[in-house]
Amino acid sequence: MSEQLQLRVALAQVDTRVGDIDGNAALVVDWAARGAQADAHVVVFPEMTLTGYPPEDLVLRESFARASERAVVELATTLDERGLGGTAVVVGYLAHTEGPGPAAVDEPPTADEDRPADANPRHGAPRNAAALLYGGEVVIRYYKRHLPNYGVFDEARYFVPGTELPVVRLHGVDVALTVCEDLWVEGGPCGVAGQAGVDVVLSPNASPYERAKDDARLPLVRRRAAEARATIVYCNQVGGQDELVFDGDSMVVAPDGTLLARAPQFVEHLLTVDLAIDPSAAPERREGRIGPMTVTRHVLSTEPVPAFAARQGEVAEPLSDCEEVWRALVLGLKDFIDKNGMPSVVLGLSGGIDSALVAALAVDALGADRVYGVGLPSKWSSEHSLDDAADLARRTGLHYSVVPIAPMVDAYEASVELSGVAAENLQARVRGTLLMALSNQHGHLLLTTGNKSEVAVGYSTLYGDSAGGFAPIKDVPKTLVWELARWRNAHAAERGETEPIPVNSIEKPPSAELAPGQQDSDSLPSYEELDAVVADYVDRDLGLAALLERGHDPEVVARVLRLVDTAEFKRRQSAPGTKISLKAFGRDRRLPVTNRWRETLPTVREGAKA
Amino acid sequence: MSEQLQLRVALAQVDTRVGDIDGNAALVVDWAARGAQADAHVVVFPEMTLTGYPPEDLVLRESFARASERAVVELATTLDERGLGGTAVVVGYLAHTEGPGPAAVDEPPTADEDRPADANPRHGAPRNAAALLYGGEVVIRYYKRHLPNYGVFDEARYFVPGTELPVVRLHGVDVALTVCEDLWVEGGPCGVAGQAGVDVVLSPNASPYERAKDDARLPLVRRRAAEARATIVYCNQVGGQDELVFDGDSMVVAPDGTLLARAPQFVEHLLTVDLAIDPSAAPERREGRIGPMTVTRHVLSTEPVPAFAARQGEVAEPLSDCEEVWRALVLGLKDFIDKNGMPSVVLGLSGGIDSALVAALAVDALGADRVYGVGLPSKWSSEHSLDDAADLARRTGLHYSVVPIAPMVDAYEASVELSGVAAENLQARVRGTLLMALSNQHGHLLLTTGNKSEVAVGYSTLYGDSAGGFAPIKDVPKTLVWELARWRNAHAAERGETEPIPVNSIEKPPSAELAPGQQDSDSLPSYEELDAVVADYVDRDLGLAALLERGHDPEVVARVLRLVDTAEFKRRQSAPGTKISLKAFGRDRRLPVTNRWRETLPTVREGAKA
Repeated sequence: MSEQLQLRVALAQVDTRVGDIDGNAALVVDWAARGAQADAHVVVFPEMTLTGYPPEDLVLRESFARASERAVVELATTLDERGLGGTAVVVGYLAHTEGPGPAAVDEPPTADEDRPADANPRHGAPRNAAALLYGGEVVIRYYKRHLPNYGVFDEARYFVPGTELPVVRLHGVDVALTVCEDLWVEGGPCGVAGQAGVDVVLSPNASPYERAKDDARLPLVRRRAAEARATIVYCNQVGGQDELVFDGDSMVVAPDGTLLARAPQFVEHLLTVDLAIDPSAAPERREGRIGPMTVTRHVLSTEPVPAFAARQGEVAEPLSDCEEVWRALVLGLKDFIDKNGMPSVVLGLSGGIDSALVAALAVDALGADRVYGVGLPSKWSSEHSLDDAADLARRTGLHYSVVPIAPMVDAYEASVELSGVAAENLQARVRGTLLMALSNQHGHLLLTTGNKSEVAVGYSTLYGDSAGGFAPIKDVPKTLVWELARWRNAHAAERGETEPIPVNSIEKPPSAELAPGQQDSDSLPSYEELDAVVADYVDRDLGLAALLERGHDPEVVARVLRLVDTAEFKRRQSAPGTKISLKAFGRDRRLPVTNRWRETLPTVREGAKA
Repeated sequence: MSEQLQLRVALAQVDTRVGDIDGNAALVVDWAARGAQADAHVVVFPEMTLTGYPPEDLVLRESFARASERAVVELATTLDERGLGGTAVVVGYLAHTEGPGPAAVDEPPTADEDRPADANPRHGAPRNAAALLYGGEVVIRYYKRHLPNYGVFDEARYFVPGTELPVVRLHGVDVALTVCEDLWVEGGPCGVAGQAGVDVVLSPNASPYERAKDDARLPLVRRRAAEARATIVYCNQVGGQDELVFDGDSMVVAPDGTLLARAPQFVEHLLTVDLAIDPSAAPERREGRIGPMTVTRHVLSTEPVPAFAARQGEVAEPLSDCEEVWRALVLGLKDFIDKNGMPSVVLGLSGGIDSALVAALAVDALGADRVYGVGLPSKWSSEHSLDDAADLARRTGLHYSVVPIAPMVDAYEASVELSGVAAENLQARVRGTLLMALSNQHGHLLLTTGNKSEVAVGYSTLYGDSAGGFAPIKDVPKTLVWELARWRNAHAAERGETEPIPVNSIEKPPSAELAPGQQDSDSLPSYEELDAVVADYVDRDLGLAALLERGHDPEVVARVLRLVDTAEFKRRQSAPGTKISLKAFGRDRRLPVTNRWRETLPTVREGAKA
């Protein structure tokens, strides 16, 4: 019984579109055909392939859930009609059952009259599901058991958890399905699979990119392969969806922890891997209740596939930290623009580093011909500002024009008396209004160029420089802005290409140029200090005592906390932007606007020694 | 054993501040003293009294959770020091335990290395708790069992559910605690209490206002009183918190369903009620495991209170639908402005109904002296517009000034060539920029005056008329705007006061006045049709087929769905505004910006008959 079974598995690391059920089904047919072309016996797609991920409140619209449920059945038929019925295809979808759904686990049944009117009625028991399609049929359906409800995830809002683990024998190989979060839980479905006896676990995922997250995935999948005593096939989606960007990084790990194959990040990719399975490695096959789940067993085919010459799986080289972030930002921007059907983008070019970096990202994402830069000099703009903006335009090849703002600023100032911050903000708002006028006139989407450090402390003008439909570097701290600019130039130099970003934009001291001689350092701590405190206070949610323990300067801490705590107004009214950190503003940091919680440091200034 | 026991209970329907632990504790001491002054034996406060509700991601900040946990212990001491130790006080708070918390119910323990980096670590097992304080001690702590995670609620993101029902004997009366949602679940803690045998259930709540929600509360509390075989004391918070407004409407219901007392809506109020309890009405007293919970019993005092002359409880008159909405909007606005420490508000007055209604609301909320209206006529403004705006200013007494926008519009148009919508939007953005300049110069918060119908279909200018820090009527459909204006005028007339809103503003056909002769009906269906479709499509989440079944005109449906589906950009960048419906935009309707789901009606125009 220790005869080796073979199986060729293809992982279709694709970029789906949220809500586009028909388009996503067509994508599955296309990539299933590529898998079949590569002689794969099984093709695995990412989580919720048919609906795209995350579909958010579309899940609560019954017509949408029904359409997804119909689509998975139709997809099985279509695949068969296209001659792909002999290739097993695993797709994610939104499951919907007619009639009232079951209550959530561990919740007593609730009479309808007792439901609050705004409770999720769970009509049709929406479930985050994966199905194995074969021979024109939906063979098994697996319902995600562990519903993440932290960070960017809200799955307890939408789904009913599954309790069943179906296992299907395919070409003599016992295959189980799980979905995404199920893989992050020790003693979860992989533990159940380990006790039930399976050979392969196929796992569709939608795991968003975060800096260095790829470093955590491989050890995790290894632990789960050991627990399941089976090969884990981890297929992740790729692409941008509003603030999230999915990096792919799909992989296959053997029960002994060997990395058999790994896909490159940030591109659609078909990763094929040849498995040699020793069924005796898994324990005796069992079914019925195991732990909190019920295992069912199904047989599609017991006959092994004919022996074939196995190939070594490809293992993509890991990217450097800077390249990884760069490609995440490019893909997040590109997909936001293209999936929303925008022809082009416009942005203000100040000659500073933020707008230069965003312009370079936009050109990488969309091509220079879809990017329009506008210089908007005021009477406080230094001479080098326009020169640097023009230099950037020449280097990148984007469309460039100049509109001086003095006539408009003067018209306002003749009508209302303004001073100080009000006068500074006016200039930024005149720029915002001009850029939006160009956006409306020509159909460009306006990009806003604020970085995470600025967004954190509210160092920007609402409806001025913060105006825009997408904020590509909203989650990039200023120190990383400089690092990325240097990396991008070096990357160009290495390849003998023009460096896109003027060195002067990188090296000059940052200034908003809204008043004579103004520099960021007049209003803010150094960006090194600021970014370090923001990382600990925002990303890690540390309180005052913990921040001081970590060695931050007490005065800087007090100042940054005050600024961050009071900038919520602006952040509530800001554009979405690609998320690359543990906690981006907006998407996954939910604080009340009206909020009196302030930790104060009463003795900072007059402290005996501090 | 059928001797009657007496107890005077006070419900402190107070307006707490999110994050203001010290301030809220002081509020509790103040209102507990008022309760003691009224000879109450127990004073009950709303849900999460000490933190305010909802604290959102503050819950995840450990320093905040620890501060709340410390505060409840200190509060018990403070109450005792102030001579209030002999009055039992029930307060809500955020509970925090040192060390790693327990896993969620029905979840296997998770090894730390397997936690995703952004998972809620549940440090200290945050729980939504209520405590009974007496004699300087925290006598019992109850942890909310049912965590709502729908609509505006995200409690699965924050809290670990409770499994224990402590019952305390106080003056011979057996008292159990539950928290908010626990009351909405049949077979929940009230069912357990019914089997355990208790006399009174004290229930702190934070139940947000929705139109006509008060009509659902009384029948619900009656069902739960029957199930618990006990008197239910339902104390709800009052006040605005960002988009939510809490209406109070606290009440007490006897086991037989008799409404013993009910507090007025939208005001802080101490509601006292005298209970006459027949302990034999409840079943035999039990403890230990009952259903999914563990019941524990505690004794504070067995001696009944000395007999006193019981008074009839007050039962507040219900408000009319219009008055209820009006007061919700006034309170939501007032608390947003005051809790955020804003001195005053500014808004543009067009002479139209939306800005007139918002001005009237602002004057009712803040007083005329804190409201600044600005007329901003353009060359397309009709003559009556300025007259109507000036009339409104005279009627309400707000500060009024006029700034014509032509000079600024001309300056832009001399710099960039604009036509059509771009030229229309420019005018709105010049107004937005002027109002923001006044806001920055004088410290006013800018109010934006868009109604729900406009917000739904995106009939507004981003950074123009949609600019502002708060949107008082964002959740009010246009048809209700007119109804409220008429009601407010009639209400004034009834009381012999000046009608605040010019009749002309109510009766003239609505127009944005951004182009010659423009009327809303050029771009939109009638507001009656629009509002009816929005209510079904947005609030009720009905799909296309269901909308047609409900009898809506197919062309109108197709048009409205297209507009609503594509307006997500603008809505993502809008100010918070008071919520009065099942689904307000922003707060509790979470749709992707990038989203291809469109239900289309291919045969609308050329349909055989339709």
